[in-house]
Amino acid sequence: MNQHAPILAAQAPLAERLARTRALTLALAEPLSEADACLQPFADASPAKWHLAHTTWFFETFVLRDHVSGYRAYDERFPFLFNSYYEGEGARLARDRRGMISRPSLAEVREWRGHVDERLQIALPQLPPAALALVELGIQHEQQHQELLLTDVLAGFAANPLEPAYMASHAGDRMGSSPASDDQKWIEGRHGVIEIGADGDGFSFDCEGPRHRAWLEPYRLAARPVSNADWLEFVADGGYRSPTLWLSDGWDWVRRHDVTAPLYWSAEEQTAFTLAGRQPLHFDAPVAHVSYYEADAFARWAGARLPTEAEYEVLAAGEDAAGGNQLDRAEAVRPHAGGGLFGNVWCWTASAFLSHPGFTPVEGTVGEYNGKFMSGQMVLKGASCATPRGHSRASYRNFFPPAARWQFTGVRLARDA
Amino acid sequence: MNQHAPILAAQAPLAERLARTRALTLALAEPLSEADACLQPFADASPAKWHLAHTTWFFETFVLRDHVSGYRAYDERFPFLFNSYYEGEGARLARDRRGMISRPSLAEVREWRGHVDERLQIALPQLPPAALALVELGIQHEQQHQELLLTDVLAGFAANPLEPAYMASHAGDRMGSSPASDDQKWIEGRHGVIEIGADGDGFSFDCEGPRHRAWLEPYRLAARPVSNADWLEFVADGGYRSPTLWLSDGWDWVRRHDVTAPLYWSAEEQTAFTLAGRQPLHFDAPVAHVSYYEADAFARWAGARLPTEAEYEVLAAGEDAAGGNQLDRAEAVRPHAGGGLFGNVWCWTASAFLSHPGFTPVEGTVGEYNGKFMSGQMVLKGASCATPRGHSRASYRNFFPPAARWQFTGVRLARDA
Amino acid sequence: MNQHAPILAAQAPLAERLARTRALTLALAEPLSEADACLQPFADASPAKWHLAHTTWFFETFVLRDHVSGYRAYDERFPFLFNSYYEGEGARLARDRRGMISRPSLAEVREWRGHVDERLQIALPQLPPAALALVELGIQHEQQHQELLLTDVLAGFAANPLEPAYMASHAGDRMGSSPASDDQKWIEGRHGVIEIGADGDGFSFDCEGPRHRAWLEPYRLAARPVSNADWLEFVADGGYRSPTLWLSDGWDWVRRHDVTAPLYWSAEEQTAFTLAGRQPLHFDAPVAHVSYYEADAFARWAGARLPTEAEYEVLAAGEDAAGGNQLDRAEAVRPHAGGGLFGNVWCWTASAFLSHPGFTPVEGTVGEYNGKFMSGQMVLKGASCATPRGHSRASYRNFFPPAARWQFTGVRLARDA
Amino acid sequence: MNQHAPILAAQAPLAERLARTRALTLALAEPLSEADACLQPFADASPAKWHLAHTTWFFETFVLRDHVSGYRAYDERFPFLFNSYYEGEGARLARDRRGMISRPSLAEVREWRGHVDERLQIALPQLPPAALALVELGIQHEQQHQELLLTDVLAGFAANPLEPAYMASHAGDRMGSSPASDDQKWIEGRHGVIEIGADGDGFSFDCEGPRHRAWLEPYRLAARPVSNADWLEFVADGGYRSPTLWLSDGWDWVRRHDVTAPLYWSAEEQTAFTLAGRQPLHFDAPVAHVSYYEADAFARWAGARLPTEAEYEVLAAGEDAAGGNQLDRAEAVRPHAGGGLFGNVWCWTASAFLSHPGFTPVEGTVGEYNGKFMSGQMVLKGASCATPRGHSRASYRNFFPPAARWQFTGVRLARDA
Repeated sequence: MNQHAPILAAQAPLAERLARTRALTLALAEPLSEADACLQPFADASPAKWHLAHTTWFFETFVLRDHVSGYRAYDERFPFLFNSYYEGEGARLARDRRGMISRPSLAEVREWRGHVDERLQIALPQLPPAALALVELGIQHEQQHQELLLTDVLAGFAANPLEPAYMASHAGDRMGSSPASDDQKWIEGRHGVIEIGADGDGFSFDCEGPRHRAWLEPYRLAARPVSNADWLEFVADGGYRSPTLWLSDGWDWVRRHDVTAPLYWSAEEQTAFTLAGRQPLHFDAPVAHVSYYEADAFARWAGARLPTEAEYEVLAAGEDAAGGNQLDRAEAVRPHAGGGLFGNVWCWTASAFLSHPGFTPVEGTVGEYNGKFMSGQMVLKGASCATPRGHSRASYRNFFPPAARWQFTGVRLARDA
Repeated sequence: MNQHAPILAAQAPLAERLARTRALTLALAEPLSEADACLQPFADASPAKWHLAHTTWFFETFVLRDHVSGYRAYDERFPFLFNSYYEGEGARLARDRRGMISRPSLAEVREWRGHVDERLQIALPQLPPAALALVELGIQHEQQHQELLLTDVLAGFAANPLEPAYMASHAGDRMGSSPASDDQKWIEGRHGVIEIGADGDGFSFDCEGPRHRAWLEPYRLAARPVSNADWLEFVADGGYRSPTLWLSDGWDWVRRHDVTAPLYWSAEEQTAFTLAGRQPLHFDAPVAHVSYYEADAFARWAGARLPTEAEYEVLAAGEDAAGGNQLDRAEAVRPHAGGGLFGNVWCWTASAFLSHPGFTPVEGTVGEYNGKFMSGQMVLKGASCATPRGHSRASYRNFFPPAARWQFTGVRLARDA
Repeated sequence: MNQHAPILAAQAPLAERLARTRALTLALAEPLSEADACLQPFADASPAKWHLAHTTWFFETFVLRDHVSGYRAYDERFPFLFNSYYEGEGARLARDRRGMISRPSLAEVREWRGHVDERLQIALPQLPPAALALVELGIQHEQQHQELLLTDVLAGFAANPLEPAYMASHAGDRMGSSPASDDQKWIEGRHGVIEIGADGDGFSFDCEGPRHRAWLEPYRLAARPVSNADWLEFVADGGYRSPTLWLSDGWDWVRRHDVTAPLYWSAEEQTAFTLAGRQPLHFDAPVAHVSYYEADAFARWAGARLPTEAEYEVLAAGEDAAGGNQLDRAEAVRPHAGGGLFGNVWCWTASAFLSHPGFTPVEGTVGEYNGKFMSGQMVLKGASCATPRGHSRASYRNFFPPAARWQFTGVRLARDA
Repeated sequence: MNQHAPILAAQAPLAERLARTRALTLALAEPLSEADACLQPFADASPAKWHLAHTTWFFETFVLRDHVSGYRAYDERFPFLFNSYYEGEGARLARDRRGMISRPSLAEVREWRGHVDERLQIALPQLPPAALALVELGIQHEQQHQELLLTDVLAGFAANPLEPAYMASHAGDRMGSSPASDDQKWIEGRHGVIEIGADGDGFSFDCEGPRHRAWLEPYRLAARPVSNADWLEFVADGGYRSPTLWLSDGWDWVRRHDVTAPLYWSAEEQTAFTLAGRQPLHFDAPVAHVSYYEADAFARWAGARLPTEAEYEVLAAGEDAAGGNQLDRAEAVRPHAGGGLFGNVWCWTASAFLSHPGFTPVEGTVGEYNGKFMSGQMVLKGASCATPRGHSRASYRNFFPPAARWQFTGVRLARDA
């Protein structure tokens, strides 16, 4: 994995990691026109320009404003536009109107970024530990938005009948041979009393902790994620037409939205819309853009089940979280065959996103960021091809509502051993 | 508890338990007019007549039709009306149109019930074990609908500005003294590797199994549920106006519906609409008709948390599940002070309703009944004042969406020990 | 028409007409069970019991309360329930919750009616002219609700898959022969400067006035309304699949609701659901339960157009408004072949419901009743089989939104001469 | 008015008028960024780029494709994107997704425009009369979109909390003195049998014809439109809180949307958001951005009424339709004091948008354009400050739903003489 080390190594100095993170966000927005950067295809997806601005607002507010004396806001009108959901930080633009912010322009937002970056680098050597922790949090926060920026751009471009490509496709992107679906190998995890959750060593979001004990019965995890070829079998076998395979609310969802394939697929043509435009399905590559409902139904169809968060985490703890197909630079973002428990696609688990035993939220506005639990969301583990390398961990808890599909979300099967 | 034994003792012969169960449903509908019995205040609540008919449809379909040769349907048009959600049993009336069934009349439905009851009692001695199991399932199923019938009637009457009373209020129903909120006592549960889930000894719904091990850290449960007096303090302290007390989706719900008190409350007048009409709040009685969101916010405000399903179940396993304030006859259905882990109100837990480790659904149409998991619902444990005595168990898993309030749902706090 | 004279003759003494009107409403509700009378199939349809009560509220409020000294309200809680839309009369139950009023019972409402009727008859001889005018208005108002009661019951029963019958069908109700569609005869109306609108001689709603001049070019009206046989041709010719036949919003409506035939029709089986249950289509009878959109599209398909209000009124002024197939008693309410410009079905016109030139609303709360214009509604002229005989006039202005179909609404074609 | 003559004179050669019209659209889009031009604030408003493209599609399809042999579509994917509602021209992008077309870019659309313009100018000398009529229609069509482009940009910018300005404000834009509201003068129109509608002399949309007779009673029209000062009095007098002033559906609209002032107003601050950003209200200038509901309520409050279409048209026929404050170039678009029956604001009439007596739609796809009547829309007469000078006529029929406010819509009062 050392080819990735120079880029986002956790050991690199904070200033360098900050600079690299900020630069990567800009690079991700590079292929976008002014109009592309303003697209908001649905209420939960934000325009790329908003991501650029919101991450900057985070640093300006919680680091510069709160910890650098004499700092004056670059533009006092920006917080209303670019605050996301921090109740403590006052009123803000309705989420579904972010696509209306044609001004400030992309250039103006870039200028603001430059201004804030400069001030941050100047301030960094003098910052107290509490502020340095916020810089670290800001980096992690920005990495999350890097992934969202990519998936939101994908959703925005998918809404255009011209199906524009965000990036070039690559010669090596062939369809692959279709693997026999019975080639599945399984790996066993530890069972009995195990421990999961962040141990406080190194950065983690506070929902990842505390480290705690749990009980696992013997189990196995599939050695590879479910592939596009596997999914085509599920489709061909009538998976989307068999109510008994689905959760009750999943089946409602299938019927209400007339779902017949993963998001962005044309199952008939065996193509998918991707960041490189419409492409033939890569049979060996992990299926992506499926909902929890689909993941769960597929598992039932396959005679297996989804892993619990603890099952996934215990095995993932033995792997290099910075390995696999993750985001290093603004290009070639797509799942490909092979790889371990990190990279390619986030894997839906059978676990609801609830606080870990013993969890207590941090006080204060930034604490809102971490303590914002919701009912009705499911945990995803691992990392995807759009996750900035170095961002994820075994204890990392990604979460989305069960019907969400616009992330790089896939499936890894589990079984009782 | 032996005064309850004659009524619903699990040891009583099946024929007797069947007869008593069927009779109780009729008795519950007794105070209702033809129009009362047709009320459907919202899509998830069913008219009382529908409950009377649907439970009959269950026995007619799965016992008489499937296991009594020569049985002919009483009326071939009824299944379309009174099937609920069994996909395998064909098309059915849209759920939100159940209030449109002014015909068949209540008398006709009662006649149908009589016919089916007669045929069931005649058939009972000859039925094979599989069919007897379905009779047992039908009894349990009807008990669930008895509770729903009461809560749906309450919701229907609440929609009438005249606020009619379903039953008389009782002299003993005084307001009680307001207990100091710091009088709370705590009980400790077992920790370490524990076992929960149904062990297959006696009836259980299959979602209750299998019995399995889990890990618990030391914890305590409040010795009594949260009372109306406690809740008035929460209201007075601005609980409904403090975003940081709430889950993110809970806060959205509060604002969207302008929630300021439990369902049916007038907080200003300290009254609540009940099955006995509008009544002064009983300060000592457990608060009822709160959502998971409210339960969770209250717990945070109180410096405590909701128990997990396992925590509640481990302690409940040591109590008589047929004890406490549960439903014995069609009268005086309301929470009152005192009582253990069963009766009064169902308690929201911090656990999502997901299948237990090792769960596999039963095959066939009736299996649908049990295997119908949904994402986004939370588990409630215990039993309420509207739960037919004998119906619940430590392993029982009631579940509702986090915003549901029309059941007798309350709160019992938990803490790390 | 003299067989109708005894029933609702405008010349009969007011006391007698009041008594007969009140009695007819009761008779119309006679076939309904307590639950039938509580059905509210959609927000714009009211339960029959509500009609019984609301018309009583009208007399109690505007006659007894306002003009009989010492009268005390029968029940002070009733106005909140049974006021309809009189802003001046205070708060009221939300329109779509009228189906929740299972109490007061039908018997209680009948008792209230009896009480009010008794007091009205006692008061009548002493009432001042202004109050007598309100009694007259109350009679006319109740007649409108008689028609609505029937069409709302029809809509309520149609929502029940059992399709109950409100009344018996009759031996004479045969299907008739299919008339050739080219048998159409036309009648010519006066043109040039004509006069329409109520002239203040006899009762009229104030939206019918003032009488005013208008200009008509030469035109003809079809001698008979469009029949079911005609409509079957329209269906067979793809009328519901041809966008160019439809108004722009009409075509949106067709697609959004997947409309393929008049309301209550099964076009394949050539049957319609009626107050006598499902019946074969009577080919010669006028088509009923079509929207303005359908009426307009049919006219375009037929190479004709809808008449304007003025065109219809000028010809209708020459006919006996109390003639034709209108409501005399609670039985046999259905369109049948033959008949003139009154009776069978209300005919959609090409005219929007706007105030006549020179119109000024009456002051005061009852004035609200008449001055309640709305944009976006179309005028219907004539009278239907459910209109109490004697209620309509040439100047009568019925009006509904263009998509409404639950009234007895049909089509009479017009052409430039 | 001769300073306007060079710009859009109807007498100018077609080629010149085409070129000027096409150039004006480009000029109107000039101040917009790539992102501004992609804004779609609500489903009925289209992005400016879409207007640029759609008007080009019209010429390419109906002139070049249909009448210039050998013409090949510039890009075969564009019709799906830029067709609006022509059923005959095939499938098209959902109306509310026009904001998703970030590609093609503004530059690409401009290139397409250039290409089509060039080909049109080359083809013009050889085109047959039918095609020349389509060029004329295309010019008129593009003028309609010029006005929409401006009002849609205004709506888009209003959705941005930064309230950007599309154009500069001008020194002369002072607030004016508040005119006494009793200064109103009235002008009398002809009455008796009058004629309205297009007579076929010069261009008109076919809904404007045929010319036909109608009857008018004596009436007067206000000599000036209702001003902002007048409207402030209406607000101060509780106009928005008085149900009896409003149509029934108008009052529903007021309450549902909590309407308290014209769109874009801050009544407290006496400012309005305009194309020049937020500006103080000009007291003497006509009120703009009011709905039909507001116009109607204001008229009732003022003891007057809205004019009918015929009343307005008869008087307007005596004025120069190319006069007044209309659009000449891409600047200073705002209502100002003074002016006649054309310019400043479109005036709501009391007339529904229905076809004129004797109307028959033109056959064929382009005919769709004119024959697209809808129920539920009201006619507006005159012209606004955003109407390209030369576009309107006395017989012109603008129309919008009664709640629409984003156009420059105002009020001119009428009275019976």
